[in-house]
Amino acid sequence: MSTLTERVTATLRDIPDFPATGVVFKDITPVLADGQLFADVLGDMAQRWRGQVDVVTGIEARGFVFGAALALELGTGFVPIRKAGKLPGPTVALSYDLEYGSATIEVHDDSFHPGQRVLVVDDVLATGGTAEAACRLVEQLGATVVAFETLVELAFLHGRDRLTGRDVRTLVVVDGE
Amino acid sequence: MSTLTERVTATLRDIPDFPATGVVFKDITPVLADGQLFADVLGDMAQRWRGQVDVVTGIEARGFVFGAALALELGTGFVPIRKAGKLPGPTVALSYDLEYGSATIEVHDDSFHPGQRVLVVDDVLATGGTAEAACRLVEQLGATVVAFETLVELAFLHGRDRLTGRDVRTLVVVDGE
Repeated sequence: MSTLTERVTATLRDIPDFPATGVVFKDITPVLADGQLFADVLGDMAQRWRGQVDVVTGIEARGFVFGAALALELGTGFVPIRKAGKLPGPTVALSYDLEYGSATIEVHDDSFHPGQRVLVVDDVLATGGTAEAACRLVEQLGATVVAFETLVELAFLHGRDRLTGRDVRTLVVVDGE
Repeated sequence: MSTLTERVTATLRDIPDFPATGVVFKDITPVLADGQLFADVLGDMAQRWRGQVDVVTGIEARGFVFGAALALELGTGFVPIRKAGKLPGPTVALSYDLEYGSATIEVHDDSFHPGQRVLVVDDVLATGGTAEAACRLVEQLGATVVAFETLVELAFLHGRDRLTGRDVRTLVVVDGE
């Protein structure tokens, strides 16, 4: 019988040259499309964090898919971390460097509180720039990052190195390109 | 005891002049932040569609929040409908007019199949442009739109008129600006 990790690995779809030439993109949409597999993945994530998390936050846009479903499973609230300019209320923002240029993410400034235990969720951990910025936004508002939870870690991009001091959990590790 | 509709209505936050002067934006993030309310909303949506839906689709980005959580509740797969250029595989795309300019949404071309019963989910029904385009993408691939399900309908924008022939369900109706 195959493990959940094996089932997810077998279901991910490789898309060559997306979003740029030479990059092999790991398409997670086939995992979402399989209702049983999606439920099993969320069940696995939920059993790991049940009772240890006060709120789940997800990073726009695919982090909303796993984050919101996981919040529902855990019975917690869900907080969206969004790209700049998308949230209507007062926000705190954080900019970070990309390979070319920079990006900014934001969260409503009343989203997290001192003492809250926050699970940060995204679908893929790549270079870790967005993940680190998301963790820093949580911490900037005085809350604690319980862990960064993700479906797939692209280990060859060393995103984990940018998340030092935080627990990083993944279901699938992709070692080479 | 207040109804679910009353609880959601009381929790929505009005943001004046967002995204443009004169517009009062209905901020749904306080509904997400309240774990009990979020669960009750998803429970309400799920009991309405249980057994009647083969797949749930959500429109980027806030439609991912309700759509993915609802798919989990219903035990179905989830299909993301995204803005142009975001999906890595072969897509079908549809452009539609906005007040100023136009927008394009896409879905992977193997997402829906003839005979499938699809629930289209977004957080807010406003002018209906995106909602109608999403329904047409589903239908273009031969599947059937069971309904367009949303948390809030801004009835004064008459989005429902663009969804003729499809069932439209909402928890909260906002009548005036």
